[in-house]
Amino acid sequence: MSDAYRKAGVNIDAATATVAAITDGVQSTYDERVLSGIGGFGGVFDASSLGPEAVLVASTDTCGTKPLVAAAVGHWANLGRDIIAHGVNDVLVQGARPLFALDIVSTGSLEPSVVEAIVAGMIEECRLNGCALLGGETAEVPGLMNGYDVAGTMIGVAQRQVLLPAANIEPGDVLVGLPSNGLHTNGYSLARSVADSVGYDAVIPDDGRTLGDALMAPHLSYYPMLSPALEAGALAGLAHITGGGFLDNLPRVLPENCGAHIDTTAWEIPPLFGFLVQRAELSSADAYRTFNMGIGMVAVVKDLGLFNQHVTAPVRVIGEVTGTAGVSLA
Amino acid sequence: MSDAYRKAGVNIDAATATVAAITDGVQSTYDERVLSGIGGFGGVFDASSLGPEAVLVASTDTCGTKPLVAAAVGHWANLGRDIIAHGVNDVLVQGARPLFALDIVSTGSLEPSVVEAIVAGMIEECRLNGCALLGGETAEVPGLMNGYDVAGTMIGVAQRQVLLPAANIEPGDVLVGLPSNGLHTNGYSLARSVADSVGYDAVIPDDGRTLGDALMAPHLSYYPMLSPALEAGALAGLAHITGGGFLDNLPRVLPENCGAHIDTTAWEIPPLFGFLVQRAELSSADAYRTFNMGIGMVAVVKDLGLFNQHVTAPVRVIGEVTGTAGVSLA
Repeated sequence: MSDAYRKAGVNIDAATATVAAITDGVQSTYDERVLSGIGGFGGVFDASSLGPEAVLVASTDTCGTKPLVAAAVGHWANLGRDIIAHGVNDVLVQGARPLFALDIVSTGSLEPSVVEAIVAGMIEECRLNGCALLGGETAEVPGLMNGYDVAGTMIGVAQRQVLLPAANIEPGDVLVGLPSNGLHTNGYSLARSVADSVGYDAVIPDDGRTLGDALMAPHLSYYPMLSPALEAGALAGLAHITGGGFLDNLPRVLPENCGAHIDTTAWEIPPLFGFLVQRAELSSADAYRTFNMGIGMVAVVKDLGLFNQHVTAPVRVIGEVTGTAGVSLA
Repeated sequence: MSDAYRKAGVNIDAATATVAAITDGVQSTYDERVLSGIGGFGGVFDASSLGPEAVLVASTDTCGTKPLVAAAVGHWANLGRDIIAHGVNDVLVQGARPLFALDIVSTGSLEPSVVEAIVAGMIEECRLNGCALLGGETAEVPGLMNGYDVAGTMIGVAQRQVLLPAANIEPGDVLVGLPSNGLHTNGYSLARSVADSVGYDAVIPDDGRTLGDALMAPHLSYYPMLSPALEAGALAGLAHITGGGFLDNLPRVLPENCGAHIDTTAWEIPPLFGFLVQRAELSSADAYRTFNMGIGMVAVVKDLGLFNQHVTAPVRVIGEVTGTAGVSLA
């Protein structure tokens, strides 16, 4: 590529090398429904087998400021896992299974090995969730970014008559919590302010990991563990605990005149959260509005026996749906 | 929201105000196929009418460093038009019509009026192209960005048997050029290096606009003007002239053993390109590899009469497909 363009801060050769390095891995996420993917003009996905009642469910998001933590601790692959898992969960809560994802990695100065590590994480997570990494973009944007931004879009499919949340959620329905794997993809600006004072090398009491390692744990996808329950009709609703934390996300899945009562003693708050809450001097309400506090997904369940038949993961009842709006913590 | 989070640089209130301000406009892009969009859990789009031979065509991209120009000249709305038009064109070249888009606006420090202006541009462009703005994300990422990053994903639908490019492109097929509206979304890092030396207020000779205004012209969508020709089967292929410019994008639409001969005197290079090429001291090859040089889309046409029956926009024959690989400019 031209010297003129390189002087302007754009390295086309690095971008080309990156695409070559990731092509085989990306193609390993494809099945016969992918008619054209990486290397072609763009993603083409066969929709003929989706069924006559199919609806497409779509979600887009970024890893927020987690990439700044990744840069500080030199660990990149989990950002790729994060963005795919986040998207899978976001379509899952609407009753959909993931079909394909598209990603964007943007950076002020492209380092092929970093992009390759991030995309390797995406590939791994796509394979775990049975979806294709159908397309993507590596954008070099000199002057615009201090590091890497990782964004993704997930497209899933649901059958129209079984979209979640179900219309019949009502007081008395059981709330089941599924453990998170750390902060997932939210609360990182606050966590970074704690890291600025204690350092990423600080060891978290009762955890043993450094703050940096604990913060880089990947966002967990709940699709593999919840898929059988979804198929069996054992889910009335799912709340993905993301930005806005526990308190802001749970009401989104409930009817307007319903709320929730949560027994916060029903699960053990992981040490990472206690550490961050204490160091940031957060109130309890702010803590549950910022972080997932150890629960990454909440399922609304009508028949706990049926649900338990289909879920082998560690879950526990953490509360129930109430007849008054709002979430009460006790 | 918590003072602690605000101190960490994240303003949840600003994000909430932004969503409230854009909701009506976003919903104006919806028809009965949008079962759930902004304000719901995410985008849900009815796929039941896509047809038994439907394939989904997906593309994702960013506006590159054009937002840095937008910031310099204080003009934001066209970034929204850009990202939608770019996505529409990217699915169009595969023979698809746009269904829905998802967007991400990321910034280090959220100014609601800026995001509203950008999203207003998206809404306008979605309406022009008959697609829904099904979902999106406004991400505040303090410390990661110096300004705004604008990204989008477009999902379109095509019928499997008429995907582009057609398999029968061959030497002698006519290449028709469709005028661009400026740089569209590519070449901005180089253009900014020129602006750094001459200033955004420099008036472009034979154009009359300032460099800043000319650079902020929106990316043009070719779907409205090419849709009738697509429906009529008058297109064998389309090349969207984006990153890599004229020289790198045209071969992507041609069979391996074919190339193209382009008569660069067949159209007038707009003054903006002459100005940039001269100031950046680009060779002719570098110019055509960096910029669209006034042609934003190239159509490969077998029956020029049929094509002209369906296209009323100003187009002109700029060359033909040849029997040897590579693009020759004369």
